[in-house]
Amino acid sequence: MNILEEKLIKKNLIHKGRAVDFYCDEVLLPNGHQSKREYLNHPGASSIIPFIDENKIILVKQYRYPVGKITLEIPAGKTDKGETPLECITRELKEETGYTSKRIEQIMAFYPSTAFSNELLHIFAAYELESGSNNPDEDEFVSNVIMDFDEAVKMVYSAEIKDSKTIIALLYFASIRKRS
Amino acid sequence: MNILEEKLIKKNLIHKGRAVDFYCDEVLLPNGHQSKREYLNHPGASSIIPFIDENKIILVKQYRYPVGKITLEIPAGKTDKGETPLECITRELKEETGYTSKRIEQIMAFYPSTAFSNELLHIFAAYELESGSNNPDEDEFVSNVIMDFDEAVKMVYSAEIKDSKTIIALLYFASIRKRS
Repeated sequence: MNILEEKLIKKNLIHKGRAVDFYCDEVLLPNGHQSKREYLNHPGASSIIPFIDENKIILVKQYRYPVGKITLEIPAGKTDKGETPLECITRELKEETGYTSKRIEQIMAFYPSTAFSNELLHIFAAYELESGSNNPDEDEFVSNVIMDFDEAVKMVYSAEIKDSKTIIALLYFASIRKRS
Repeated sequence: MNILEEKLIKKNLIHKGRAVDFYCDEVLLPNGHQSKREYLNHPGASSIIPFIDENKIILVKQYRYPVGKITLEIPAGKTDKGETPLECITRELKEETGYTSKRIEQIMAFYPSTAFSNELLHIFAAYELESGSNNPDEDEFVSNVIMDFDEAVKMVYSAEIKDSKTIIALLYFASIRKRS
């Protein structure tokens, strides 16, 4: 066992949820003591930054209940059972924005919260878009916001955009564009 | 009520945890239907990218139980009761790395997971550091990794660094350094 590693003593499901489960496991620490780890069991998710052209992207506006705010985010959604991240995001892009894409590329996958969730969130970029009608989940209310890429990056610096995956997608392209 | 907004019908605490609480609230959707929202109630946290010099930073290596991996992250921790984000990160920097700083500047605050947590995570940068001995929490096992800033950014692009706050701090400086 690695010197930093913690070992499961007893898995403890507190709540089997509709979208996520909540656990409070007993663990053995590297120093031999016991502790508890509370976390969400999450199926994983995918998100996408859709480029209408090099300087225009699609964001979605939606109400996020946990933070009590309407946020501006890249389209995203949880992985359905049996779906690959690419299948998930192809479906979510169409459902949330109405757009389909002829070219989708993965740029990254990250952990939003290593301390309290096992969610792995994939980020893709979409090019060669075609518009159509959207079809969100019955408990989901989203609206498209088409905006300049540079303006969106400024909204990261000014803290108007505060969502992790959206910040990462925007700063990723801001940083590699400057490199090239 | 805004056309996207959801309204609380009944707050429902499922688990009062040691570090976070888990809720499953009943809400009223914009279309008049009811639904449930499952989320973590989190006290907020602060993180910091400590610059030893312009090109050298301190990361911490630790085991993250929810994702089952040893990760490389910027130092961070939950806000204690009554603490400001700056007080929190000054304490955490010393506890986790042993370093103190004569100049700490806030660069951002973001939501790691707008769908499942109300956590607001502040990011600071620390300059003019002085080393000392660390003093982590009794259930926390961390070790310092001093590395080149550019090397850490490469580890974001190669997906070796997967933690949201660490990616955001690194891409933030990568993108503004390229701008100037």
